[in-house]
Amino acid sequence: MYNITFILTNPQMGENIGAAARAMANFGLKELRLVAPRDGWPSESAQAMSSGAFTHMHDVQVFPTLADALHDITFAYATTARPRDMVKDVFTPRQAARQTLSRTDTGKTAFVFGGERAGLGNDDVARCNAIITAPTNPDFSSLNLGQGVLMVAYELFMTAQEENIPPAEGTQHTPAPIKNFDNLFGRLEEKLDEGGFFRDEGLRPKITRNLRNTLMRAQLTEQEINTFHGVIRALSAPRS
Amino acid sequence: MYNITFILTNPQMGENIGAAARAMANFGLKELRLVAPRDGWPSESAQAMSSGAFTHMHDVQVFPTLADALHDITFAYATTARPRDMVKDVFTPRQAARQTLSRTDTGKTAFVFGGERAGLGNDDVARCNAIITAPTNPDFSSLNLGQGVLMVAYELFMTAQEENIPPAEGTQHTPAPIKNFDNLFGRLEEKLDEGGFFRDEGLRPKITRNLRNTLMRAQLTEQEINTFHGVIRALSAPRS
Repeated sequence: MYNITFILTNPQMGENIGAAARAMANFGLKELRLVAPRDGWPSESAQAMSSGAFTHMHDVQVFPTLADALHDITFAYATTARPRDMVKDVFTPRQAARQTLSRTDTGKTAFVFGGERAGLGNDDVARCNAIITAPTNPDFSSLNLGQGVLMVAYELFMTAQEENIPPAEGTQHTPAPIKNFDNLFGRLEEKLDEGGFFRDEGLRPKITRNLRNTLMRAQLTEQEINTFHGVIRALSAPRS
Repeated sequence: MYNITFILTNPQMGENIGAAARAMANFGLKELRLVAPRDGWPSESAQAMSSGAFTHMHDVQVFPTLADALHDITFAYATTARPRDMVKDVFTPRQAARQTLSRTDTGKTAFVFGGERAGLGNDDVARCNAIITAPTNPDFSSLNLGQGVLMVAYELFMTAQEENIPPAEGTQHTPAPIKNFDNLFGRLEEKLDEGGFFRDEGLRPKITRNLRNTLMRAQLTEQEINTFHGVIRALSAPRS
């Protein structure tokens, strides 16, 4: 969707590469690069874990070093939870997504992820322009590789849509005109009367108002109002 | 951090329960409920996959049915990618997080996730107040369980941090626990039966589901539920 690539440096388990690819494809990202994957490439376990994600992506490219993988990149984010003794901007995934999507140049952005064991080394981080640290519970902050990839991919997708997020789709739901509801409610009140519901006439206005208010919150559709007419009819049918 | 619980219904693999717990703990969420986990509970594979997450959480609670797991919940979101033939609001995880964090009542919110195989059934969705659908690539939208949990947990954490959501000035309308609603609904169904409402037994599940769904939208308070018990009593009283 954008000129973006994800780079996994020294990934160990094929399963995690597969999970990362799946998360990328879920959010429309197509370009994955691997730096010296421990178990080689291609990988059957990556395929199995990906649920078919690779068919939605470009061919995976493999490089011997991070420097090689970054050869055509114009801006790289290193993802890491550990603070580094480096002068580098640190962003959340959301901030990085906003920054990336509002970039006006024609360059290519990389998101660089470390291996499962030790994450990114200082040298790797130093090759990148900025750091992404996901906000997490400080007492339990370790994310696995697939989850880290998911979070960044999700923010890119979500942020791209956000200015244009479609309104919450409650809209298939078209409430009936209030008049139809009034008919229903009048019927209910009549039947309640017959059943001796209003024992205290003084309380009738308040009780009726509350009941109406409650039912109106449901914002009934025409069809639902018809159903409720049936409900009242059935409930107030003569018992044998 | 908030009065929030995550519910996994019919989870199959312990590994996925562990991954879900890890994602929850990463974002400071402590309460996990399981509905009829296929391989039982406790689970060694869940422990192994959790990277120690359970030590940061309350004890996992196990329930035989979703209805039981929802007994003290006042608002439940069903997470599902599939559109349903039901009148229910559909939110993104971010919208649901904002809504949850700006709720003014003292109730408890549940996020309900389906099993790996088939997700949530229609009856499960009907028991919830609203739907969450994650925005994903339409060509490749299937998320695994742990990833779905991560996305919702992340949005709750992130939204709480990033936006200083002022409490909604509301009516302090505190919905009753879903269990109380279930009692009311059971009573209604019984009386409808007596009144010959279900002429076609084959349609009963669908009609019942739609009726439940409609009434749940009103988010009844305890007092309103009591009122409705009176309504049903009065409507079904013997006529002279």
